[in-house]
Amino acid sequence: MCGIAGVWNVDNAYNVIHDLLLSLQHRGQQAAGVVVNGFKTVKGEGLVESVLTDERFLEGNRGIGHVRYSTYGSLDEIQPITAYTLKGRISVAHNGNIVDANEKRKFIMESGGIFSTTLDTEIIIHYFSIAPYTNPRESLQWAMSRIKAAYSLVILHDSFLAAARDQFGIRPLFYSKYENGYIVASEDSALRSIGCKCEEIQEVEPGTIIFFTDSNKPEIVKFSRRQDRFCSFEFVYFARPDSNFYGVNTHEVRKMLGRKLYEENRVQADFIVPVLDSGFSGSLGYSQVSGIPIEYGLIRNHYIGRSFIMPKNRQEIVRRKLSPLPSVLEGKEIILIDDSIVRGTTMKIIVDMVREAGAKKVYVGIHSPAVIGSCNYGIDTSRRSELIATRNDAEKLREYVGADKLFYLSVDGYKEVFEGCGVNGICMGCFNLDYPV
Amino acid sequence: MCGIAGVWNVDNAYNVIHDLLLSLQHRGQQAAGVVVNGFKTVKGEGLVESVLTDERFLEGNRGIGHVRYSTYGSLDEIQPITAYTLKGRISVAHNGNIVDANEKRKFIMESGGIFSTTLDTEIIIHYFSIAPYTNPRESLQWAMSRIKAAYSLVILHDSFLAAARDQFGIRPLFYSKYENGYIVASEDSALRSIGCKCEEIQEVEPGTIIFFTDSNKPEIVKFSRRQDRFCSFEFVYFARPDSNFYGVNTHEVRKMLGRKLYEENRVQADFIVPVLDSGFSGSLGYSQVSGIPIEYGLIRNHYIGRSFIMPKNRQEIVRRKLSPLPSVLEGKEIILIDDSIVRGTTMKIIVDMVREAGAKKVYVGIHSPAVIGSCNYGIDTSRRSELIATRNDAEKLREYVGADKLFYLSVDGYKEVFEGCGVNGICMGCFNLDYPV
Amino acid sequence: MCGIAGVWNVDNAYNVIHDLLLSLQHRGQQAAGVVVNGFKTVKGEGLVESVLTDERFLEGNRGIGHVRYSTYGSLDEIQPITAYTLKGRISVAHNGNIVDANEKRKFIMESGGIFSTTLDTEIIIHYFSIAPYTNPRESLQWAMSRIKAAYSLVILHDSFLAAARDQFGIRPLFYSKYENGYIVASEDSALRSIGCKCEEIQEVEPGTIIFFTDSNKPEIVKFSRRQDRFCSFEFVYFARPDSNFYGVNTHEVRKMLGRKLYEENRVQADFIVPVLDSGFSGSLGYSQVSGIPIEYGLIRNHYIGRSFIMPKNRQEIVRRKLSPLPSVLEGKEIILIDDSIVRGTTMKIIVDMVREAGAKKVYVGIHSPAVIGSCNYGIDTSRRSELIATRNDAEKLREYVGADKLFYLSVDGYKEVFEGCGVNGICMGCFNLDYPV
Amino acid sequence: MCGIAGVWNVDNAYNVIHDLLLSLQHRGQQAAGVVVNGFKTVKGEGLVESVLTDERFLEGNRGIGHVRYSTYGSLDEIQPITAYTLKGRISVAHNGNIVDANEKRKFIMESGGIFSTTLDTEIIIHYFSIAPYTNPRESLQWAMSRIKAAYSLVILHDSFLAAARDQFGIRPLFYSKYENGYIVASEDSALRSIGCKCEEIQEVEPGTIIFFTDSNKPEIVKFSRRQDRFCSFEFVYFARPDSNFYGVNTHEVRKMLGRKLYEENRVQADFIVPVLDSGFSGSLGYSQVSGIPIEYGLIRNHYIGRSFIMPKNRQEIVRRKLSPLPSVLEGKEIILIDDSIVRGTTMKIIVDMVREAGAKKVYVGIHSPAVIGSCNYGIDTSRRSELIATRNDAEKLREYVGADKLFYLSVDGYKEVFEGCGVNGICMGCFNLDYPV
Repeated sequence: MCGIAGVWNVDNAYNVIHDLLLSLQHRGQQAAGVVVNGFKTVKGEGLVESVLTDERFLEGNRGIGHVRYSTYGSLDEIQPITAYTLKGRISVAHNGNIVDANEKRKFIMESGGIFSTTLDTEIIIHYFSIAPYTNPRESLQWAMSRIKAAYSLVILHDSFLAAARDQFGIRPLFYSKYENGYIVASEDSALRSIGCKCEEIQEVEPGTIIFFTDSNKPEIVKFSRRQDRFCSFEFVYFARPDSNFYGVNTHEVRKMLGRKLYEENRVQADFIVPVLDSGFSGSLGYSQVSGIPIEYGLIRNHYIGRSFIMPKNRQEIVRRKLSPLPSVLEGKEIILIDDSIVRGTTMKIIVDMVREAGAKKVYVGIHSPAVIGSCNYGIDTSRRSELIATRNDAEKLREYVGADKLFYLSVDGYKEVFEGCGVNGICMGCFNLDYPV
Repeated sequence: MCGIAGVWNVDNAYNVIHDLLLSLQHRGQQAAGVVVNGFKTVKGEGLVESVLTDERFLEGNRGIGHVRYSTYGSLDEIQPITAYTLKGRISVAHNGNIVDANEKRKFIMESGGIFSTTLDTEIIIHYFSIAPYTNPRESLQWAMSRIKAAYSLVILHDSFLAAARDQFGIRPLFYSKYENGYIVASEDSALRSIGCKCEEIQEVEPGTIIFFTDSNKPEIVKFSRRQDRFCSFEFVYFARPDSNFYGVNTHEVRKMLGRKLYEENRVQADFIVPVLDSGFSGSLGYSQVSGIPIEYGLIRNHYIGRSFIMPKNRQEIVRRKLSPLPSVLEGKEIILIDDSIVRGTTMKIIVDMVREAGAKKVYVGIHSPAVIGSCNYGIDTSRRSELIATRNDAEKLREYVGADKLFYLSVDGYKEVFEGCGVNGICMGCFNLDYPV
Repeated sequence: MCGIAGVWNVDNAYNVIHDLLLSLQHRGQQAAGVVVNGFKTVKGEGLVESVLTDERFLEGNRGIGHVRYSTYGSLDEIQPITAYTLKGRISVAHNGNIVDANEKRKFIMESGGIFSTTLDTEIIIHYFSIAPYTNPRESLQWAMSRIKAAYSLVILHDSFLAAARDQFGIRPLFYSKYENGYIVASEDSALRSIGCKCEEIQEVEPGTIIFFTDSNKPEIVKFSRRQDRFCSFEFVYFARPDSNFYGVNTHEVRKMLGRKLYEENRVQADFIVPVLDSGFSGSLGYSQVSGIPIEYGLIRNHYIGRSFIMPKNRQEIVRRKLSPLPSVLEGKEIILIDDSIVRGTTMKIIVDMVREAGAKKVYVGIHSPAVIGSCNYGIDTSRRSELIATRNDAEKLREYVGADKLFYLSVDGYKEVFEGCGVNGICMGCFNLDYPV
Repeated sequence: MCGIAGVWNVDNAYNVIHDLLLSLQHRGQQAAGVVVNGFKTVKGEGLVESVLTDERFLEGNRGIGHVRYSTYGSLDEIQPITAYTLKGRISVAHNGNIVDANEKRKFIMESGGIFSTTLDTEIIIHYFSIAPYTNPRESLQWAMSRIKAAYSLVILHDSFLAAARDQFGIRPLFYSKYENGYIVASEDSALRSIGCKCEEIQEVEPGTIIFFTDSNKPEIVKFSRRQDRFCSFEFVYFARPDSNFYGVNTHEVRKMLGRKLYEENRVQADFIVPVLDSGFSGSLGYSQVSGIPIEYGLIRNHYIGRSFIMPKNRQEIVRRKLSPLPSVLEGKEIILIDDSIVRGTTMKIIVDMVREAGAKKVYVGIHSPAVIGSCNYGIDTSRRSELIATRNDAEKLREYVGADKLFYLSVDGYKEVFEGCGVNGICMGCFNLDYPV
């Protein structure tokens, strides 16, 4: 998971990208990078506010930016990646994965090509460069059609900004008119946060590239047949609650998942305690249909970030981040509600904590199905062997986290919620092993 | 408002203070400082995690730390302040204000004393130095008894750690046994976050100094008669929801204030929308007695901090920090609930935002009375002229923020809630102009 | 002009490269970079001591390093440059120029290749990658034979360290046994500064690559016929006075050039004032044959480096760097001796300064001929139009710098000195426009 | 040894102090600090060019600055030191020592005073504060008359800049008109480097304070009877060769000392090799009377500064800093000439190095007497026990450094040189134990 943004023909492009990336920061906190006019670049490890402190580039009017989720890689490995080609200078920021990256990389190197990084982004640039066209836009189109992958990307060239999305539309991408130019971002909420109007925000359609050029009229080029397989985890966890996909709000979807969770399980208790902040929307849904009140049984310390000298121990980190409220929990039966469960290690610590704080019974409700498969399309849900649900049925999982009950949504129930919203063709590969490619 | 912490006879004192300050970070985000064994010092502007990155001091077993709220002052002005005196080296961190600081400062300077800073903390050190005793502990006791003020403080001396609180106990301070030594902090939640046991946490009583020495038995010295006037704003806003004062949990108090708000006003609506995060507890209380459901109508971006190139404009800052959820608000009557209202400028922006997002009616409920007086005891509620309620009655305030209704708690109702919890002698000076000194 | 270094099979490679680069710092003060085992990289703008502060890489046993002279380029443009190829990972540091860089770059890009930088170094990596061999050593050999250029380079590969020099041997390169491994550096003085023995130091011969591999026996591969055209400016100005080329010490050559300067001109005066530090050796020679004593008429401030807030004005910079000594100069006839004159602007300021300090007559002696041509082989003597001697005969040059006399060495005299030392085939292109390619 | 500077009523005061401190950098490389209008302060460890990078204060027109020699102390301990007093805010920078600092410090603390630092500078501020006057200028005068010490200082007050020198005038201090205002600096060469005219440069007389005020006419106040005991080491070693004291140039004095050294010893050899840069002037003198030519037998690497990862070993540091030139030294008898010998450890390493490089005979000539006493007046010649000459007669010293001969100036010869120049009342305490106080 990463966040990307692009700006075309807008004053103070650097500032605007900065604000967009701040709104996309939840998609990646490990590194940030921006490239603006003249391919001037600022990159660094850490949060947007600590990386983008340089005010030298304020006068530009175009650029792209990236926030990165994963932790590996050195300074050179921070996106966007820029290169010189015969077809002009080009810079690319990328959210997702190229499925056959190793093969493609090998193919390029066998033709004599060299790589500066290990990033998939660089493969895209190579394909742009080797495309059998002299025209940069045709070259990009060719590259996109050759790379079967799960990605969204923004590309800055001397003569255009491009926004592209793979044919499955696995990762989101939106654009909007803004002042005299255009803005592109991974989530529509980021566009709205800087003042784009809802009615002007549009999806970049799967299988298309949109070129923003000096004509200042977006030109949409289709490079592949659309075959929607949007990642359902975007709805459940990745995206902000004020983001919308297919015209449906993620907070509303999460509430519906919470409602469905109650319909399927009907567990009763004194209180619902949301596992902040991701479990809050689902808790609301569960509460609305069950009538069980929500309580503030866990407090979150928002200042605990990436402190150098923090304990390495996962348990101590969680204990500093979340505090249970004994005055609320003492002697009560509670339902902890969270959006998903991957490895179960954090939930196990939370269950311990609320018990120590006096909770009499601790039930754990998850408003998505058990994660049984890893994802090759850009989500770091890790190797299958690490996924707790692949090794355990619900009972064993309950035992592991130490809850009195543990329940999650059925795959069918999950599917119904999306269908009920009119969202079709969603990918649930990590829940049912049915992947697009 | 500031946060202070102290550690005595505990391994890795620097790390422990780091963790305590992280837990107190909500009390001050402008600067942080730590002094450990040998008076080795790390200080800087910014958050704890960006200031306390130095791992050189890891081997110490005692120290004090400070997080600062206010924005003025240079690097030299960051606490703790350390000095050499005839009675040994001494370092002080301070939460609160000396009421007659200017007079005391002048008195010292007239006797030939010099000041390195403008901080009240340095006055305390001077009084320690001029005290007519050779013994450092008696000197400190004398200094405390001479300074009529509203403060809590931690003091590191070659031969002791001391924790002290003025006779009114305006600012909180707690201590606890921890491993083989002792820990001091502004809030009990900070002590618990690092593993102190609830039953070992005790209040530093107003009008006393507690000395932690090589005897490793806390020695409590009374320097003034206790006359409790604890700041009620600590309950309402400053402290974390998992903190307790007088054995009463702040989250519970806020819920009761929310309930009382409904009892006094009985405003009906489709939803309650908490103004995150401070209005959440009060919203729960209001919801519980009114039966009006809570909804997640405002989303907060936690990554918007102190970014360099942020817009200076208050409205744009609020708009990036909080997003309204149109899918929730569209066509609805809502009650925005917040803990307090000081200048009203932020609330005005929020009311605008939720209206733009489609709310049909916007009511604003505040679960404390109108702030009509400034505070001389360490809270930056500013000069009276800036307080909106001093210039406006409720109707004018409503008009200013643009709400359809605006209601807050009566002073009597507010008082009743505290009395109902058994919390007496609370200071409500900013609401009723009845100040302790 | 740049400096390069390499280390193979030596403990604490990072430290050793650090020390070598410090000894080569006179060859470039703008940027520094090091790559060690695993291609771990430290790079930055500025002096070695401010860039190489990271101690994380101390455990490596091989690596290469670079100090850069020119001022253009961003962080990405600092050498060494590293890339992934089918033949393994490779890192290159480079001193010199590829003559037909633009053509070669275009050729690579026309074949679909992409460039991350504007550096010639990257061309070398591309040629290594496209070489029609799978073996990396054969590939490097092929690349060297294809690139007709003026360079010395060090290359780090997973399986070897290589040191290579173009067929003309324009830039210097030396290697030596050191402890259990080998060391490579631009000047022999750098090798001696870390303790290499004189008798073990050898030149990398023009037209050869030396591979250092796990066999730990240097393998010398000839890729082109040696045609010595060593840069005479290395003798005159670039290299340290304790460096040797062709077994001849640069300080000794400079003294001989000073002697020859007197033989050709026989200018008399009260004192010789060396223009520090570059004119010192030549002054000694002139003094020895003329009998005119040297005096310390100009003092240099070694702390004036690259201060941020220095005056931009060249005159003020020179005036802060060099101070004249009135007590020495007052009423005297002096000969200022410097090694070369390129634009003449600095000398003009110096002549002004010594006159102001009281010198009665100011003669300027240069112990090399007038620079009339620019150099395409790695020396930044700029475009011909900026060279003062191309626009002026000696008289006009004298007038420009404001001296009472100005004299320099004849091209023939210059040549004789080298021939007299047994140094043949030297390049004097910038003096006589006779370039090797 | 330290360097101090002050600026009054001059545009861009910060820049001017920066340039002055660069010219005084040889007096201290460990730390630098500047205070300008409004007592805005920039301080840090390291060289001027790395500390004074902040351009925020450019608009001031007055200020003081300091460069520090010694290595102890934390950030708080960097001068200038600023304090608030009843008589206004005051900032002090100080070159020298207070002889009875411990007593004075104790006296202040016994009166209840506190110290923020361990610096003598703070004692001066305390005396200013306790002076029985309300007028700040009278207070300063009183303070100076009470503190018997060896110092020069600059003081910035809201209403004046002051420059003061103890009655013995041990450390130098000069001032000059500059543009519309005045400049103060430790050496006249610093004043000239920024453009002050020689004829306007004046000594701050021992036992006086000069006040620069809004009247813009320097007011000279005598606080003690002048009793000249100027430090002779300033002539021999500390000051730049282009500095003058008592109208006598240091380079000329050093030459005379070199001449006297030959007169007293008449050692013959093939060459004189100056130990750069401090031995150069003396070498010239020795060469002029002896007729023995100077040769460049040792090269200095100016880039070796305070690199982090340098070898801690003194021998390796010297070997990286200085390289012997075998082509010069091979088979020769040489005289190494240096200005002084304190511990002898560096000279021992140099003698080893030149022998290894082939020198047949190595003689060591020192153009000052043997250092037998430590100095309490601001020079870090260390405790007596560390001084080699106190433990060894010339023969033992020769043996220790490994020279074939070792000779230095007699105390009488040394004295004669100064008398011959008309410089009287010079302090030679470290050579003859006759100290001023």
